[in-house]
Amino acid sequence: MHIDGGRLWDALEAMARFGATPAGGNNRLALTDADRDARDRFVEWAREAGCRVTVDAAGNMFARREGSDPEAPPVMAGSHLDTQPTGGRYDGVFGVLAALEAVRALNDHGVRTARPIEVVNWTNEEGARFQPACAGSGVFCGAYALERVYAGTDRDGRRFGDELERIGYRGDAPAGARPVHAYVEAHIEQGPVLEREGRLIGAVTGIQGKRAYRVTVTGTNAHAGTTPMPGRHDALVGAAHMVGEVERLVRALRPDAVATVGAFAVDPGSPNVIARGAAFTIDLRCPEEGPLDEITAAYREAFAAIAAERGLAVDWEDLGHTGPVTFHEPVIALVEGAAGRLGYPARRIDSGAGHDAKYMARLCPTGMIFIPCAEGISHNEAERITPEHAAAGANVLLHTLADLAGTG
Amino acid sequence: MHIDGGRLWDALEAMARFGATPAGGNNRLALTDADRDARDRFVEWAREAGCRVTVDAAGNMFARREGSDPEAPPVMAGSHLDTQPTGGRYDGVFGVLAALEAVRALNDHGVRTARPIEVVNWTNEEGARFQPACAGSGVFCGAYALERVYAGTDRDGRRFGDELERIGYRGDAPAGARPVHAYVEAHIEQGPVLEREGRLIGAVTGIQGKRAYRVTVTGTNAHAGTTPMPGRHDALVGAAHMVGEVERLVRALRPDAVATVGAFAVDPGSPNVIARGAAFTIDLRCPEEGPLDEITAAYREAFAAIAAERGLAVDWEDLGHTGPVTFHEPVIALVEGAAGRLGYPARRIDSGAGHDAKYMARLCPTGMIFIPCAEGISHNEAERITPEHAAAGANVLLHTLADLAGTG
Repeated sequence: MHIDGGRLWDALEAMARFGATPAGGNNRLALTDADRDARDRFVEWAREAGCRVTVDAAGNMFARREGSDPEAPPVMAGSHLDTQPTGGRYDGVFGVLAALEAVRALNDHGVRTARPIEVVNWTNEEGARFQPACAGSGVFCGAYALERVYAGTDRDGRRFGDELERIGYRGDAPAGARPVHAYVEAHIEQGPVLEREGRLIGAVTGIQGKRAYRVTVTGTNAHAGTTPMPGRHDALVGAAHMVGEVERLVRALRPDAVATVGAFAVDPGSPNVIARGAAFTIDLRCPEEGPLDEITAAYREAFAAIAAERGLAVDWEDLGHTGPVTFHEPVIALVEGAAGRLGYPARRIDSGAGHDAKYMARLCPTGMIFIPCAEGISHNEAERITPEHAAAGANVLLHTLADLAGTG
Repeated sequence: MHIDGGRLWDALEAMARFGATPAGGNNRLALTDADRDARDRFVEWAREAGCRVTVDAAGNMFARREGSDPEAPPVMAGSHLDTQPTGGRYDGVFGVLAALEAVRALNDHGVRTARPIEVVNWTNEEGARFQPACAGSGVFCGAYALERVYAGTDRDGRRFGDELERIGYRGDAPAGARPVHAYVEAHIEQGPVLEREGRLIGAVTGIQGKRAYRVTVTGTNAHAGTTPMPGRHDALVGAAHMVGEVERLVRALRPDAVATVGAFAVDPGSPNVIARGAAFTIDLRCPEEGPLDEITAAYREAFAAIAAERGLAVDWEDLGHTGPVTFHEPVIALVEGAAGRLGYPARRIDSGAGHDAKYMARLCPTGMIFIPCAEGISHNEAERITPEHAAAGANVLLHTLADLAGTG
């Protein structure tokens, strides 16, 4: 049993026309007209595939293919159709359309499953226009109250609830509060590991835990020309040494952790003034909780030593925590098994990025399937995958879903 | 022979009312109404002291006290009355008013000098509203064409020439093209050296040479969560290591040089994106030319090594050069001698900041007198000096001018 790779690729191409950007990417922010158009097309395709589409109060869309046991909780698969403002064509979209293609392939092969299968499009995974990210799956799984999500506003002050209503996707179904047998999300890796190793499939073991911090370093501003080097309290140089330590310590302490300083600001930021202040962010991730604390402690100690040596003050602000998520071992094994049977080189891999599967893992047995993306580039209009990789991922999804749904 | 310290302090206090800011500093940008009011008051005081005031085409003001030989080229002393937008009360102002006070003291003591003495207020030293800085002295000394300076525009598009006309200080006298016997400029140090060492007077030996660069580091942006540490091309971390080298190498190579990274920008500067670009400035100064080249070469080598190790590109942009200026040894010796006779602890010192004396040194024997300023803070509303330090500097200026002008 195989999916139709050409049909899947055509669907990806067709979907990429909604919110297409001149640079070849997509700008399809949640609850915009482009998002509505993409949703409308999804409904059309799902109905053509014989599915019944329901929409819940958070705008989450479920295209249901009935099984032989209508009382059994469904197996769900999907992702999201919204994108970053300068996003790519595959992040999220691939997971929704691969699941739709799996349903089409079950139809093609006349396979009847025991449990129903639902293809889901979660609302506002990206969090680019409205906070929080993963809003739809978060509400579905009870992580966020619906009213909180409705109250979120975009940059122009428009409310999530109003915009959902405006595009016609505030549904009647309650958001969540119903049993799900299992959830599988196919997604592009958004990192370079699979491509580098020549693997087609990643059997995702979980989603890394994350710590985010803002560190502010305070020194004394002074004239760049008149202040001798000894006795300076240069916040920028102190912060630069800390940035070096962020990289050095994470590598020394945990090969499976990553740490990034992505933002760095200087006060006053004038070429001939020794900086009085510097502030930078740390994004620290690891598949295990313990090392996150251990690495943070090492950073605190190293920064304190740099600050003491240079007469600087250092201040930490906690920008958020997410605990690591471990996916369901039997689902991971099903993904691995399906890849093996199909002859695709695969490996277990931890997800560095967050996904809707993070919340679904609270509700039911959950797993993810990664496919390679060129050079690991994502959240970028240059995001690229190949039709072969897309087909491989969709085939693994098809077989995993069939296994989970059982034969009728 | 002594100046009147109380009278000098009163003049400083009175001048600080023009463009006073709530925080106790001055906002007296060149060619504003506040600058005009300060100039008007200077004319009034100069005439009260028996001087004839002339204004040249660049707006430079000369308050002349005749000597016994009216044909002899004058000894000049002064500085500037304009300030930074959030400037202090003493930067520039002290040099003008100390010179005026020296003239008053010569009057008080009935001293007739052989050469005339001219107290000068140079136009737009700060360069905060119009570029270039040191515009008036630059034109006077032939470094800039008058028309170029007239053509400069401020942020609102107003022309220097028009604004000079508007405030009534576009004078009839030609700018420059006349002989000057010597020039002495008293100024606050704008650095911490004299205060730290408990010295009252700095006999300034010259003005440091300066190199300014912008260094741009280019790597590859990628997802902070999904990209393993090995194989990253993180422009921000690479740039942070270069900033560390800016400090380390200047200290290792030349104890008399200073180097500052004051500005640092990141592209895209998002907390969860590995930076594709980072750009920073280097402000490098040294009293000698050779080390500036030597340190720059060491930076280029170190940055190239960091870039090669991390798969980054590094690009240098030259933002400007100023050669070091060496003041006239006999003038330096006169300043030192005057301080010694007056019993003021003094030391030779190089100026880290640029001053109008930089251009006057091209025209005639030139020197400067520094007094301490609290914690080295300048270009800041918190700039502070003491009445005792002001009086000491003005006394040294008085004696130096008397020595240079000779007795009649």
